[in-house]
Amino acid sequence: MTTKLLDSYKTLTQRNHDCTLIGSTNNLLEWDMQTYMPVAAAPFRADQSAYLAGLGHRLWTAPEVGRWIAECEDGCWDAAGVEAVNIRQWRKSYDRATRLPAELVERLKRETSLGHEAWVQARQKADFTLFKPSLKRIVEINREMAERWGYEGSPYNALLEGYETGAETGQIKTLFQKLAPQITALLESRKPNGAKDPSLPPGPYPVEQQQRFNRRVAEALGFNFDAGRIDTTAHPFCTTNGRHDVRLTTRYSEADFTNSLYGIIHETGHGLYEQGLRPEHYGTPMGEAISLGIHESQSRLWENQVCRRLDFWEFWFDEACRCFPQLKRSSPLMIARYVNHVRRSFIRVEADEVTYDLHVILRFILEVDLFEGRLEVEDIPTAWNERFQAMLGLSVPDDARGCLQDVHWSMGSFGYFATYTLGSLNAAQLFARADRDVVGLQHSLKRGQYHPLLQWLRTHVHEQGQRYTPQELMKSATGKGTEDEAYINHLKTKISWMTD
Amino acid sequence: MTTKLLDSYKTLTQRNHDCTLIGSTNNLLEWDMQTYMPVAAAPFRADQSAYLAGLGHRLWTAPEVGRWIAECEDGCWDAAGVEAVNIRQWRKSYDRATRLPAELVERLKRETSLGHEAWVQARQKADFTLFKPSLKRIVEINREMAERWGYEGSPYNALLEGYETGAETGQIKTLFQKLAPQITALLESRKPNGAKDPSLPPGPYPVEQQQRFNRRVAEALGFNFDAGRIDTTAHPFCTTNGRHDVRLTTRYSEADFTNSLYGIIHETGHGLYEQGLRPEHYGTPMGEAISLGIHESQSRLWENQVCRRLDFWEFWFDEACRCFPQLKRSSPLMIARYVNHVRRSFIRVEADEVTYDLHVILRFILEVDLFEGRLEVEDIPTAWNERFQAMLGLSVPDDARGCLQDVHWSMGSFGYFATYTLGSLNAAQLFARADRDVVGLQHSLKRGQYHPLLQWLRTHVHEQGQRYTPQELMKSATGKGTEDEAYINHLKTKISWMTD
Repeated sequence: MTTKLLDSYKTLTQRNHDCTLIGSTNNLLEWDMQTYMPVAAAPFRADQSAYLAGLGHRLWTAPEVGRWIAECEDGCWDAAGVEAVNIRQWRKSYDRATRLPAELVERLKRETSLGHEAWVQARQKADFTLFKPSLKRIVEINREMAERWGYEGSPYNALLEGYETGAETGQIKTLFQKLAPQITALLESRKPNGAKDPSLPPGPYPVEQQQRFNRRVAEALGFNFDAGRIDTTAHPFCTTNGRHDVRLTTRYSEADFTNSLYGIIHETGHGLYEQGLRPEHYGTPMGEAISLGIHESQSRLWENQVCRRLDFWEFWFDEACRCFPQLKRSSPLMIARYVNHVRRSFIRVEADEVTYDLHVILRFILEVDLFEGRLEVEDIPTAWNERFQAMLGLSVPDDARGCLQDVHWSMGSFGYFATYTLGSLNAAQLFARADRDVVGLQHSLKRGQYHPLLQWLRTHVHEQGQRYTPQELMKSATGKGTEDEAYINHLKTKISWMTD
Repeated sequence: MTTKLLDSYKTLTQRNHDCTLIGSTNNLLEWDMQTYMPVAAAPFRADQSAYLAGLGHRLWTAPEVGRWIAECEDGCWDAAGVEAVNIRQWRKSYDRATRLPAELVERLKRETSLGHEAWVQARQKADFTLFKPSLKRIVEINREMAERWGYEGSPYNALLEGYETGAETGQIKTLFQKLAPQITALLESRKPNGAKDPSLPPGPYPVEQQQRFNRRVAEALGFNFDAGRIDTTAHPFCTTNGRHDVRLTTRYSEADFTNSLYGIIHETGHGLYEQGLRPEHYGTPMGEAISLGIHESQSRLWENQVCRRLDFWEFWFDEACRCFPQLKRSSPLMIARYVNHVRRSFIRVEADEVTYDLHVILRFILEVDLFEGRLEVEDIPTAWNERFQAMLGLSVPDDARGCLQDVHWSMGSFGYFATYTLGSLNAAQLFARADRDVVGLQHSLKRGQYHPLLQWLRTHVHEQGQRYTPQELMKSATGKGTEDEAYINHLKTKISWMTD
């Protein structure tokens, strides 16, 4: 390897590190915006975010970066080595980034900073018109971005690529079209057993006690609080604000402690992925998550494959009773039934596991229609409500419980939702494989020992960074790409023990 | 005015605005570091801070900035206008900044980020040796900075200039040498009245109730919570993280609600100055505070001239009793005596108003000795303890209650402390003048109406931004530069009503 080659690689690593300093600082600006920022600070915060986004974009799209990458590509690197991974991923992100002018990136950042405030207001007042002007501008910018990135087939492919590299609209459509009727069939197959809906002893479940319990659970799953924390936001999320700085958020209802708990378990799954990336590679592709569909597999694996099991509640029941004495009047089985209860409802993040993917598929269809030209922004509420009626059989009472419920569009994230259901499928497939690979896994889960499972995920997923594409990673870890089989089996098993 | 001239002014304004975006974001990084950041994130946070500091420094010290300033200086601006103020201050800050290489600025930033963590540890363990290596490096960098800035007389002048523009070591020494014996005389003049030390009914004073009460008071003084907030830190401070984003912090003791209260009142004074700067000038010198000595005059004015008065407690007593029912066993006079009680003690931020300045003067003398070559870092604990004995008559039990108590040195802030006492003097002088100017001021304070006083401060101090130097501002507002007379009168009056 020539010195010049090594120099180019080193310089690129440094540049990537600088961009990570800027990007992670911007994550902090956004985290703060959603947690603690005073309301009047929003317009200037939008300027701060836009400035850093533009700066990072300019640094990464500078002509010399293209030159350094080309120089690196001339080298004979070990094809399986870290350097080869980084160079390949740098090329991908450089090509994608250089197709957008800095002005457009800054415009999106500014619109979404303001759009977030508009969305908060609109959602509070259940009034789509308050968010519509922002949303129109955000969609328009995304349409322009898709055109600039270029695509074959659907313009939506160009947006998907940003969240799930290598994914294709048509393939996802096919997978979802196969999945949806199976879920509907499962929903309809449940024999009415005459029993009342499961319920918890009435609240209040004090927020402080919820925080205490959630923290215990997150810690037990393996989340490192020396390198992370939990705060409160309107919409739960996980963000990485720097090396060893992974932050989770949730929201609290004093009537029902399981909302915030499963919010935190879900985000802990994301957090464990982020904390499991190799810190020595932080700031390069080898130290970054590969896609949202893989990210979501981690959150849903802990949430649904692990923490909705009956044995999870058998293990945690005593601790839960210490935090919430009224639970003594319930039982592990009652709580497990409650948190697995299947019931068509309006809010995705509060939906049960079985109906959840119908929510996602609805959004996916609307987004594809929006970007393939079959839907305009002003028609979203109507289209949403009609499809919701058709897919979930419910009449949406207002936009707060309809198309305004999710934060994503206000953040300019189109192409994102599909990864939730890819995550469900991947989670089931990874868990089924870990169950085959890890000796005594069932036994350790029963005893509240999560380390063997986490270790398997560390080795087969987290530590791989961006070595593989999502589908390569699934093949390497489970022997096949994303399929619906393991997931449908999981749902069937669950429905059968629930109704036993 | 030629187009080119106007262009240079506009371009400079834009550059200053960009630097403000970067600087205010760095303030958020530091605020987060002291409030919510997970402990393992510290090293990377140091990199983030250093990167932004270096970036801002490079942007402001670029050769074109010097050219634009020189072009602006060629114009015939209205000498009393905003533009003339900005151009003059840009020149000052450019000349000061260009004397430091970016590498040095980044090194200081990194050392102080790490130094802060070392200080926290050292203070917790009351072990100076844990902080000493960091402190040595930080002092060394400050010595180098003083040399690069240049100075006449004492190298300490070069450091002072960063906090109190135009201040001179010798003049401050003279002022302090006049002040100290007057304070000592006041301390010794108190006739022992045989009564026990004033005390409050015993705690606990729950933190949540303290937060409620503090917020009410801060709101009544005029702090706008739509553009600010309060959090918890080891050491109270006020920071501005963007336009309309002023954040205060304090710390809580359940044994004594007045610690956090006077912490918040003090920081509210700073916050009112920041919120009173004209927002349309934010990001230029006309929208910035002029010096720390003026800043501190605002915090101490509200803390000591307003909120330690007997009539403050006459007005707030009922509300305080609602938050802390045990206070019903006390009285406004008892609380007022308690919060004005003069008692030699170890911790500056908890010191009473009369002994407070002795703490400051001690630090000032040590710093001058440190930079004039009469003191080395390893000798600080000994020197501190000896002087403390001499000035305050107390033997320091450990470094946590001695030289480790303050955050400033860990932040690399040498030259800062003197501004606290300049603030005391300015506060008394400004308040005495407002009392002459504002009709019915005493009456409105008795009724808990703080707006007339705030309005006078807005007009004569806050809205002036950097129009005047600190001493010009004092002359414009009170008719004379900083003197000790009003302050000593204030202390004498207080001691007399306290011992009546």
